[in-house]
Amino acid sequence: MWPDRRLTDLLHIDHPILQSPMAGAATAALAAEVSNAGGLGALGSAEMTPDQITSAVADLRGRTNQPFNLNFFVGDAPVTDPAVLARTRDRLRPWYATLGLGDPPETLPDLGPSFDETRLALLLDLRPAVVSFHFGLPPAPALAALKAAGILILSTATTVVEAQALEAAGIDAIIAQGYEAGGHRGSHQPTAPAQGVGTMALVPQIVDAVSLPVIAAGGIGDGRGIAAAFALGAAGVQMGTAFLSCPEAGTDPARRTLLARATETDTMMTDAVSGRSARAYRSAYATAMEATREPLPAFLQLYGLTDPMLEVGQDDVASFHLYGQAARLNRPLPATDLMRLLVAEARAVFRSLS
Amino acid sequence: MWPDRRLTDLLHIDHPILQSPMAGAATAALAAEVSNAGGLGALGSAEMTPDQITSAVADLRGRTNQPFNLNFFVGDAPVTDPAVLARTRDRLRPWYATLGLGDPPETLPDLGPSFDETRLALLLDLRPAVVSFHFGLPPAPALAALKAAGILILSTATTVVEAQALEAAGIDAIIAQGYEAGGHRGSHQPTAPAQGVGTMALVPQIVDAVSLPVIAAGGIGDGRGIAAAFALGAAGVQMGTAFLSCPEAGTDPARRTLLARATETDTMMTDAVSGRSARAYRSAYATAMEATREPLPAFLQLYGLTDPMLEVGQDDVASFHLYGQAARLNRPLPATDLMRLLVAEARAVFRSLS
Repeated sequence: MWPDRRLTDLLHIDHPILQSPMAGAATAALAAEVSNAGGLGALGSAEMTPDQITSAVADLRGRTNQPFNLNFFVGDAPVTDPAVLARTRDRLRPWYATLGLGDPPETLPDLGPSFDETRLALLLDLRPAVVSFHFGLPPAPALAALKAAGILILSTATTVVEAQALEAAGIDAIIAQGYEAGGHRGSHQPTAPAQGVGTMALVPQIVDAVSLPVIAAGGIGDGRGIAAAFALGAAGVQMGTAFLSCPEAGTDPARRTLLARATETDTMMTDAVSGRSARAYRSAYATAMEATREPLPAFLQLYGLTDPMLEVGQDDVASFHLYGQAARLNRPLPATDLMRLLVAEARAVFRSLS
Repeated sequence: MWPDRRLTDLLHIDHPILQSPMAGAATAALAAEVSNAGGLGALGSAEMTPDQITSAVADLRGRTNQPFNLNFFVGDAPVTDPAVLARTRDRLRPWYATLGLGDPPETLPDLGPSFDETRLALLLDLRPAVVSFHFGLPPAPALAALKAAGILILSTATTVVEAQALEAAGIDAIIAQGYEAGGHRGSHQPTAPAQGVGTMALVPQIVDAVSLPVIAAGGIGDGRGIAAAFALGAAGVQMGTAFLSCPEAGTDPARRTLLARATETDTMMTDAVSGRSARAYRSAYATAMEATREPLPAFLQLYGLTDPMLEVGQDDVASFHLYGQAARLNRPLPATDLMRLLVAEARAVFRSLS
């Protein structure tokens, strides 16, 4: 039924529907069900320890013998200017007070590069069918080693130039991520929250610029969005938010309730939680930080200051509930049923257009 | 060939392709060619005097006997807090200096409501087939008078709530405008530049919320986008940027050159030129004003301060060159040929999906 089989052929899957590797929300149970239903399940492995990755993969392999995707961030060890840290601590003090916390921490976590030799060695050992990267790609030797091991490589582009860079690096398919998408924007360099190209505009421009299969992501919530992605020239879709309401997802109950009444306007793009732009539920903290923008600590190090705020659990004040602009289209179905429904819906739209 | 004929039947047109009523760029020649080619041509009449409207309509009617659309802004007479004016003059002083201008004007233009009794009377006299409104709708008696005169009424929604309000007011079809779109966002209340829902996410949510035909706008540059809009449930599209490169458009030569090398990233959303958010070519002025946001003079009154800057003609410093995120897809063809190509492309995509 799929009008373009490049992606399904490449990934050896029945349906060109990739589940986004949402850290935390994407459990082994969810990924396995998506893969078993003919899509490509994924695990956000960026913030897992090697032991956690090993055990999650074992869990996954106990549940499915189909291909799946492990996702990693790339990026050098983050470094923050002490003056920026001092200024950000001052800006966060009122929020700490509001949330009944003491003083913001004086130091930031000391972090290495996001994708390191340990993780590379682990992947060469675990050999998932697919590895995807966010924020660009690891160095060429790492890519070459993964390719030599027969692992397919995906990465995200938010612009045409990024897509061309990914193609030049020799990966297998490109995820074109529009502004609608929940979670971190996969831009290869940090971008301001207001910067972003919508999926409708982005996908055909990337399709025209590269010869690799393009996977559309951002704002796709049901079979209509899947069919629209194919109309734009994509060979598949990546959907995250749609799976957050599946019982297999790691979404906590309060946030399931919130998703059940989500609207298209209750998220915003913010870099004030992690240090890079991400689409998340609109909080008072993120809104205030966006109103007057100043330099922030480096990506991931900023969590050292914001994690205590998030842990309080007052989502309207400060939170990082990541979801996209089509959450209203979510259906709280088991992943297998949701996959079946998405395929049937897309098929019905294809028929209705002919 | 169109899988949904609600809009073509409603508007008595062959092809559900509406040309955006871009003030200045949309000439009578452009609108007439679009209408003659089976679409719906439009004139941005918001900033024309009644005499200019009368003469533009006569010009149009000399060129086509097909339906066309006259577009108006709605909004009360703008009022600006004197403190906001003073502060904005201070913020603009360095830009005036950079551009070799003197002091910013001390007063703002005294403006009436955007859509007034004179314009209503004029429309009842001119009786265009279609009138569209931006930023909401005029009061109910004006709407009723237009309807009684047999004029079809369109307006823009940027959210589901706005679409529901338009349906409740009794108009004929809704333009769902995504964040990708060039020009002013049609939000019923002013919004911050970073706020906006992408077309891919917005269209199906509005389609689900109303029973009126929905016209997708924003990021649609060729037949792929048109087909995608139908996949999302739209009954038609509105395209502006695509027509800016037609010889019939009022686009000036320097800007045609710029459009010929446009990318998906060279626009930004700014409210620092007119007082409401609009997508325009990225200028140093708009970028700086966005970096630290402060209250601005009211919509349209702000032009009193910014027009002198725009008139200098240094587009990279300060400009209001309005276009959307799919400008790279533009083809510099006569409008008739572009219309024919768009229809053929959409048809080819529909076939390829079946």
